[in-house]
Formats: sequence, structure tokens, C-alpha cells
Amino acid sequence: MTDSEPEKWMREALQEAKLAYLIGEVPIGAVVVHNGEIIGRGHNLREHGQDATLHAEVLAIQEACEYLHSWRLEDCQLYVTLEPCIMCSGAIINARIPVVYYGARDPKAGAVHSLYQLLGDERLNHQVEVHERLLARPAGELLQRFFRGIRERQKAAKKARRQATEKN
Amino acid sequence: MTDSEPEKWMREALQEAKLAYLIGEVPIGAVVVHNGEIIGRGHNLREHGQDATLHAEVLAIQEACEYLHSWRLEDCQLYVTLEPCIMCSGAIINARIPVVYYGARDPKAGAVHSLYQLLGDERLNHQVEVHERLLARPAGELLQRFFRGIRERQKAAKKARRQATEKN
Repeated sequence: MTDSEPEKWMREALQEAKLAYLIGEVPIGAVVVHNGEIIGRGHNLREHGQDATLHAEVLAIQEACEYLHSWRLEDCQLYVTLEPCIMCSGAIINARIPVVYYGARDPKAGAVHSLYQLLGDERLNHQVEVHERLLARPAGELLQRFFRGIRERQKAAKKARRQATEKN
Repeated sequence: MTDSEPEKWMREALQEAKLAYLIGEVPIGAVVVHNGEIIGRGHNLREHGQDATLHAEVLAIQEACEYLHSWRLEDCQLYVTLEPCIMCSGAIINARIPVVYYGARDPKAGAVHSLYQLLGDERLNHQVEVHERLLARPAGELLQRFFRGIRERQKAAKKARRQATEKN
């Protein structure tokens, strides 16, 4: 079975998430699409950049703005593997992106459905058409694998410390 | 009368707002303070950078993160002349900034008191102590002067177009 058009772009966002995974960042990826072409890509770089604003969506939006020489991404779609947080939802609104697809929900920090429904707020001067749960499974599995790896390393480190203490 | 400590920093944020004003950007400025020293400054650069994410707060936070080599701005205070929008409120939360002072309220897009109260949301893993209306008057007057200037230029341009049409 071949991918639908949105699935094709979400697979590109997943590739970005995998790049984050490979360097030990929480694996989240995003792409901005314009006229059937990717004009912005990003993956979470918070730890490598030691900068709280370096989320996948912000990086993809910045690259797209640079490409179009415009802060208005009016004919663009954003694809992101995880439900955007408050900051990224605000960046999507500020950039006037009309359509967003995301993968897995984020019950702790998601601001599109989970904690807030920011992208549909009619008091703001821009509303966004949202499609959720697109390739949510691989996006969620990648995140689970990442956090399981962290827990296993913490467990192993604790065990090694205990064994070292017992020897002394 | 000498300035209080918070007033002193807010005047620095106002200086940033004036820099934005001088280059025709909506005049909003911000500084991040750490141990009695400014470690991040920013003013709105959306039009010059053609990038929707270039708000004063985001730029000040990015500079502060770079200075401290840390995405956690835990012992910092942010001063900004206007109530932060959704994106900037999210950036403040993501950077774990504990204290925010702001000047004027933004009834259309403010996300700290006006439309949302994001910085006090107890469901999130970080809450912010907020002080509002610090030097709100000069901050608001600068914004009013900016928008009045735009309206006057639009009016003058309209009049010039009408006169040109009448001559033909």
C-alpha cells in the first residue's frame, strides 16, 4: 500500500525525529511543506544547543521563513511527530500556518488538544486546521524506546554504584 | 526619586523597545537578568528578519541560554515591556524562568493575564511568579505612538492617491 500525501510528509518528520534519537535528544521531528516541497525541517536540539527554544517545530518554521523570505507561512502545512507544546503552538499561530498534522498526543504538555486547544481559539487572529494521530504509532514508539533507554541506563548506573559500594 | 531594582531593569527593556521603534518594528523589548547583570537582550525583529519567531522575549532567552550554556534559566528574571503572547509564554515556561515582570497588558494576544493565564498553570511542570504593570505607561505610550504613526502614514498615502486621481 502506498502512502497518502500527508503520510509521505509525516514520514519525513519521523526521519527528523530519528535524527534527534540518534544524538540522544527527545525524538521529535517536524517539516514544513509548501507547494508539494519541504521548505523547512527540524528536530529537537534542546540539549545539544542548550537552548530551551530549539524545538523541532520552531526550527522548521524558522527555516521555512528564511526560504520564503516571509514571516507569513500562509500556504504551508506543518507536520510534527508529537502534539505541539504551548511555545510551538504559539509559533504556529504567529507564523499564520493554516494546516497542522501531528502524530502522538502529549498528555503532559500538549497544547493543541490535551491541556489547551490553542490552535482553534477564535479570540485570536488566526485559527489552524488540525489533523491528529497521523502515524502516531511509530512516533509514539520512538519516544517510548527513548525513555525506556534512559530508564535502563539509570538502573544500570544505580546497580553499578551499589556493587562498587559493597566492594568497599 | 531613584528607580527600584525592577524599574532599573524595565528601563533597559524599554531601551530595547525604542530600538525596535527606531527601525519601524512594533516596539517591544525584553531583557533577562541573572545575579544583577543583564545576560540577554532582545527587541522585536519580525519584519527585519521576516521570521515569526523573532519576538523580544525569544531573542533575550536565546542570548541568555547561550551566555549560561544552559537551557535552564533557573536563577533569572525576565523583564518585557508588553504582556507575552502564547509563544513567548511557552518559551518562558520551557526555559524554567522563575520570575517575569511585564509592562502593559495586551488584551488581543496576551497569554499571561488577558486571554490565558499560562504562567500559573499548575498542570505544567513549571510555574512563574508574575509582576505586571511595571512602567506600563511609557511602554504603552511607545506602542500607541507607533500605531498612531502607521495610521497617519496610511491616511497621508490615501490622501495623496486621491489627489493624484483627481488631477488625472
